[in-house]
Amino acid sequence: MIKEYITSNKDRFLNELFDWLRIPSVSADSKHKTDVRKAAEFLKEKFIAAGVDKVEICETAGHPIVYAEKIINASLPTVLVYGHYDVQPADPLNLWNSPPFEPVIKNDKIYARGACDDKGQVYMHVKAFEIMMKLNILPCNVKFMVEGEEEIGSDNLGVFVEKNKSKLKADVILISDTALISLENPSITVGLRGLSYMEVEVTGPNRDLHSGVYGGAVANPINTLCSMIASLHDENGRVNVPGFYEKVAALSAADREALNKAPFNLNDYKKDLSIDDIKGEHGYSTLERTGTRPTLDVNGIWGGYTGEGAKTVLPSKAFAKISMRLVPNQVSDEITQLFAKHFESIAPKYVKVKVSALHGGEPAVTATDSKAFSAASKAFEEVWGKTPIPTRDGGSIPIVALFKKELGLDTVLMGFGLDSDAIHSPNEHYGVKNFLLGIETIVTFYKVFAKP
Amino acid sequence: MIKEYITSNKDRFLNELFDWLRIPSVSADSKHKTDVRKAAEFLKEKFIAAGVDKVEICETAGHPIVYAEKIINASLPTVLVYGHYDVQPADPLNLWNSPPFEPVIKNDKIYARGACDDKGQVYMHVKAFEIMMKLNILPCNVKFMVEGEEEIGSDNLGVFVEKNKSKLKADVILISDTALISLENPSITVGLRGLSYMEVEVTGPNRDLHSGVYGGAVANPINTLCSMIASLHDENGRVNVPGFYEKVAALSAADREALNKAPFNLNDYKKDLSIDDIKGEHGYSTLERTGTRPTLDVNGIWGGYTGEGAKTVLPSKAFAKISMRLVPNQVSDEITQLFAKHFESIAPKYVKVKVSALHGGEPAVTATDSKAFSAASKAFEEVWGKTPIPTRDGGSIPIVALFKKELGLDTVLMGFGLDSDAIHSPNEHYGVKNFLLGIETIVTFYKVFAKP
Repeated sequence: MIKEYITSNKDRFLNELFDWLRIPSVSADSKHKTDVRKAAEFLKEKFIAAGVDKVEICETAGHPIVYAEKIINASLPTVLVYGHYDVQPADPLNLWNSPPFEPVIKNDKIYARGACDDKGQVYMHVKAFEIMMKLNILPCNVKFMVEGEEEIGSDNLGVFVEKNKSKLKADVILISDTALISLENPSITVGLRGLSYMEVEVTGPNRDLHSGVYGGAVANPINTLCSMIASLHDENGRVNVPGFYEKVAALSAADREALNKAPFNLNDYKKDLSIDDIKGEHGYSTLERTGTRPTLDVNGIWGGYTGEGAKTVLPSKAFAKISMRLVPNQVSDEITQLFAKHFESIAPKYVKVKVSALHGGEPAVTATDSKAFSAASKAFEEVWGKTPIPTRDGGSIPIVALFKKELGLDTVLMGFGLDSDAIHSPNEHYGVKNFLLGIETIVTFYKVFAKP
Repeated sequence: MIKEYITSNKDRFLNELFDWLRIPSVSADSKHKTDVRKAAEFLKEKFIAAGVDKVEICETAGHPIVYAEKIINASLPTVLVYGHYDVQPADPLNLWNSPPFEPVIKNDKIYARGACDDKGQVYMHVKAFEIMMKLNILPCNVKFMVEGEEEIGSDNLGVFVEKNKSKLKADVILISDTALISLENPSITVGLRGLSYMEVEVTGPNRDLHSGVYGGAVANPINTLCSMIASLHDENGRVNVPGFYEKVAALSAADREALNKAPFNLNDYKKDLSIDDIKGEHGYSTLERTGTRPTLDVNGIWGGYTGEGAKTVLPSKAFAKISMRLVPNQVSDEITQLFAKHFESIAPKYVKVKVSALHGGEPAVTATDSKAFSAASKAFEEVWGKTPIPTRDGGSIPIVALFKKELGLDTVLMGFGLDSDAIHSPNEHYGVKNFLLGIETIVTFYKVFAKP
């Protein structure tokens, strides 16, 4: 019955999602402010059409949060679904094979910014809810909280959660914003990395100089920034910021064994990325590196002349965006402080350095012994015919730690993306199969979870 | 009589120059191609108005060369004036206090892109020639060759010079494209550095990746590029490219002494640039570093996300523009090869590196025992009341070596700018006093030089 409903409504489901994907809700870019709100309004209408009791566009200091609920019986359990309707910036635009905000299906995949992260995954929940309402099989209460600032650090979500604790009362939080190992190997994420995202500015002379007249006598801030960045890793690939590893828990032999059971083929991995070699912290496997070890990456760098041709400038300033992924026990604010202090301390006398924190989030490990986790696992078994493998993801969903702290709730990370979906990259996509199976798995989760 | 002519025509001289400066003849940017030609046409008209016999816009594979001449008597000596009418790009535009192509005078200085480099200095020659024609005091033949590609490496000038050796026959080349020590300390440049200008591209994975999913396991090309750049200098501030110093002549004690006689105050230098310290090759003074030692500077760097806010991308590519200033005996093509070979050799296996040569030019030392040098020196004495100090400049005018090689001619570098003129930078300017005294000095040079 569920399968039939999905099959006969498939085209409408996809068309509705496409309409939503056409709205460029890029939260990081202030010129898309009205688009972000349009995406919120769109979602509100879809919640109403699906049959919620109540829906609100909740204002924040930034982009709004869409809240909706359907309470069928106060004595039944309540699932709180979290997701986000904002998307990453689409640049570099020239690398997209089709325009990022004109969704198309190619090879059974939906190509668009947000197709997977996270509009596509949120929309599965809207449609799963619609199905349960239309087929009259909703077995418990459900609340939805979909924010518009996840890609810029969820700055205003904390205040909203704190102010609305009773409204958000629930038994479990359900989030679809992660990836499966593969269509053949379904998995449930049980660990997420945290984040400290910084911007640094290195200033040399007070104006751009002619590199002939001053070169060799005045420190070049780009060269200086490069040396400072180079010094941020040691020869073993470890992050060279004092105190950085202090709180990182060592992996037990059992943890390592469990982690490395996930199917992984290094040759396929290298081939997929067209790289001749991998690089990371010595002494750890790739799955350990991305799942359990903290990192430091430069996400962007700029300075001097970057246009066509040659300009012999010794620039006044150089900039970089540097982020660190954090693992359990590391605290984002502490790491931010450690980084800032260290980066300022290694600045040579011939430059001035400014370090700003752009955003952060805490790492998290979710419970695997809960009723909700077990329901998610059984839902996968029923729909996919395989027991899902617990995995640790490299990405960050900082609100998982926030929900635990503020609402005392565990989260189940039932995501249906794939690592190859190119989220945050050009040509982001999401498998139509993932989308449709995801809807079915979500409906099944409710059935199992609400069983007395 | 000369002084009077300059004084009574001062406003017209400046207004004409302003009209020329309004044409954004940015040779590096293909969207300004027609502007570059407009600047050439403008100059042609001014040569005609000033009284040349012949003027031509000579086509090249790139931007045209303006050639003009006035031959009064084949038995008299001939001065060949070289200059360029193209300008550097004006970005970053937001750092200009007034628009770069809307010249204004503030504090007796002309603010505009090209005000000094080199339209302002070329225009002194046009007006000096006008004066000599109007006052009937031109004492010898004069030829003008003004190109439109100096700021992008004079790629087509060599072919032009080679093909037009008889047309360009002369006794000396006169160039105003350098700087004085100060208005109080006039100087003549007798050494120039050469240039090798490269662009490097470092490619990691074949697409931009999510830094959470892949960070820590896949090499980040920005981090890699930074480490490679950091390794290009050793701990003594020397360029770490094998063979780089092989042909560099050691400075004699006498050379060093002469060089360091030029007035220089380190505190003023640091204060002018707002830096707390200088940086350069150990064992050399600032004047030695800029005048006599080769260097390596990053002129531009870019990669990853550089927009507003935070984007957690592990980019596919990172880029840099890197240039080296060369000193006598170093050969630009050889250094370009050494750099490319070295940069490729230090690329780790986890990235691919592409190195392209953007442009180059040879270093030069000019004669100080020639009739022309002595005439230039005397002209300064007459107009400025002081003997000019011979200096070595850090900048590059690669055509000086080209002229020596192709035409067998020595060059006199009689420039009237100041190092503080911010050429190649926002708020480029040129002193009205420098402009007017320069015109007078040029007229005086002809008078002394042509004296039998």
